[in-house]
Amino acid sequence: MEKITIGVVGALGAVGTCMIRCIEESGLPVSKLIPLDVHENEGKTLRYRGSDVSVREAGKGSFQGIDIALFSAGAQASRTLAPVAVEEGCTVIDNSSEWRMKGGVPLVVPEVNPEALRRHRGIIANPNCSTIQMLVALKPLHDAFRIKRIVVSTYQAVSGTGQKAVKELEDQARQFVADREITKSVYPHRILFNCLPQIDDFLDSGYTKEEMKMVNETRKILGDRDIRVCPTAVRVPVFRGHSESINIETEKPLPPPSEIRQILRKAPGVSVIDDIENKKYPMPVDCVGKGDTFVGRIRSDPTVENGLSLWVVADNLMKGAALNAVQIAELLCEKGLIKGET
Amino acid sequence: MEKITIGVVGALGAVGTCMIRCIEESGLPVSKLIPLDVHENEGKTLRYRGSDVSVREAGKGSFQGIDIALFSAGAQASRTLAPVAVEEGCTVIDNSSEWRMKGGVPLVVPEVNPEALRRHRGIIANPNCSTIQMLVALKPLHDAFRIKRIVVSTYQAVSGTGQKAVKELEDQARQFVADREITKSVYPHRILFNCLPQIDDFLDSGYTKEEMKMVNETRKILGDRDIRVCPTAVRVPVFRGHSESINIETEKPLPPPSEIRQILRKAPGVSVIDDIENKKYPMPVDCVGKGDTFVGRIRSDPTVENGLSLWVVADNLMKGAALNAVQIAELLCEKGLIKGET
Repeated sequence: MEKITIGVVGALGAVGTCMIRCIEESGLPVSKLIPLDVHENEGKTLRYRGSDVSVREAGKGSFQGIDIALFSAGAQASRTLAPVAVEEGCTVIDNSSEWRMKGGVPLVVPEVNPEALRRHRGIIANPNCSTIQMLVALKPLHDAFRIKRIVVSTYQAVSGTGQKAVKELEDQARQFVADREITKSVYPHRILFNCLPQIDDFLDSGYTKEEMKMVNETRKILGDRDIRVCPTAVRVPVFRGHSESINIETEKPLPPPSEIRQILRKAPGVSVIDDIENKKYPMPVDCVGKGDTFVGRIRSDPTVENGLSLWVVADNLMKGAALNAVQIAELLCEKGLIKGET
Repeated sequence: MEKITIGVVGALGAVGTCMIRCIEESGLPVSKLIPLDVHENEGKTLRYRGSDVSVREAGKGSFQGIDIALFSAGAQASRTLAPVAVEEGCTVIDNSSEWRMKGGVPLVVPEVNPEALRRHRGIIANPNCSTIQMLVALKPLHDAFRIKRIVVSTYQAVSGTGQKAVKELEDQARQFVADREITKSVYPHRILFNCLPQIDDFLDSGYTKEEMKMVNETRKILGDRDIRVCPTAVRVPVFRGHSESINIETEKPLPPPSEIRQILRKAPGVSVIDDIENKKYPMPVDCVGKGDTFVGRIRSDPTVENGLSLWVVADNLMKGAALNAVQIAELLCEKGLIKGET
């Protein structure tokens, strides 16, 4: 494969840092990595393959010579800079919510809808973390039994909010242990030893934007307008690793859980941990730094025709963000699709 | 009302301690409180209405003269001692799972099925914490619209396991802050900054006992064999306050959320906190020490006919255990039912 120059926008953030680790460990034929970030971070250095690399300011002209840029600097940066990057000949893989639902922008989970990449016009969107792990786990079941409805409740880690939120939870833990007042600035309420049934802003419907991402992105990625998703997104005091309690109803009859496990064991990106006799099931602390989506607690739901419940955990910074973006970059390289279908 | 002598078995435990506080604050006409516990705790003292009271050993003969005994010393103690207490003329309100599903034993949430108390024969069972708060919130909706199916995922606090688990979470927080190895003994896995998708033992069906309590107790309390419950019970790093993400399907059409809120505002034991514009919703840290069941995030679920989602939080030691037991005792006194229907 031809060597590429890769850029990472938001290189010093929680996801950006993880993206650089994922690039190092990937099979990407990288000749050069260019970390980009906001003006304030210009000149800071980060480690890449054993060397210090300086951060450049992201802006007009900074994407010249970059083949693929991974964006994770928030929706605002993606809105203004992704078109600039495309203009300068760069293909953008964007981790923000900015471009996900736009026409002509493929929204891709490599295990689920790699074919969507062919239609890109310079910007490819990385889905929401909660959506990615849900669909990696459910796609094989959707293919086999056609999922009609999903009821999902999430248990989401603070790193999904960013490094400031990670620090806030750490600080609150220190304050608790020192018996000091617990302060907050990132979340509207204390997160330590608490559950916040709000992620992102509320919409008039009573659902949050995070919840509607799970509804709308699922439909776009699966290419199925009829699939119904009812989500409840909840922030829990966990640093890293989103968990999801998922209940599905399928069109076709479901086999016993043992056969479901067999199907999932063969699925790409899925790791089944479902040995209840030995108290083994997926947990956030066990998934940190791993690329797979972990599935357990697989059991029939007798309260509905063709019902199944399962528990899905993944590292929200890895498969939920950085790794998925790097896997998209790998696919672009492998398939010769960096510049789109020629 | 005639004055009564009240006993508390397991008086030094997490729930027992809370029971004594609830008795102090209740309208119960108590002339004497007798704390009882295992042999090892005999002679220890606890505070009751400003005085120290000595703990007696629970056993044969120790229930003589006690009118009502609240049990919270585990299923084993309830199995052996509740019949002894009844034999000695005492009426037992038992917080363990031991008697809940037995015929002739009423399983009571005062706001939901107070009428069941009339049929007691000496033992009355207090339901599982997760079931109590779910049914306090859902009973008014079941009455108005008949609930057919419930899909519920829980976010349960460690105090539900007992004081040892509270200490384990505290210890793990101290170990984390001091950058020491995190040790565990109560739970099979670390609970700090983690989620454990297991509460109580697993059954062959793949569901846990905790989950099946929610299924079976719901049916018994509502007197509705047809109501279907699909639960996922999860332990989260929260000290006190269980949260539940609940999705229901009803037989009758549901009005808009504003009307659901009106119905719930009028319901006994329910407090609606559902002001999303101001980021107000129920949270575990806000419910500690309170007796109500808090309901928020009330919104229509368009993915099913007559669907509704809601978020329910209550103090698992209060309404989920101690307070519910004390409220049963209050009802027994008010209705003259301490000795059953005469």
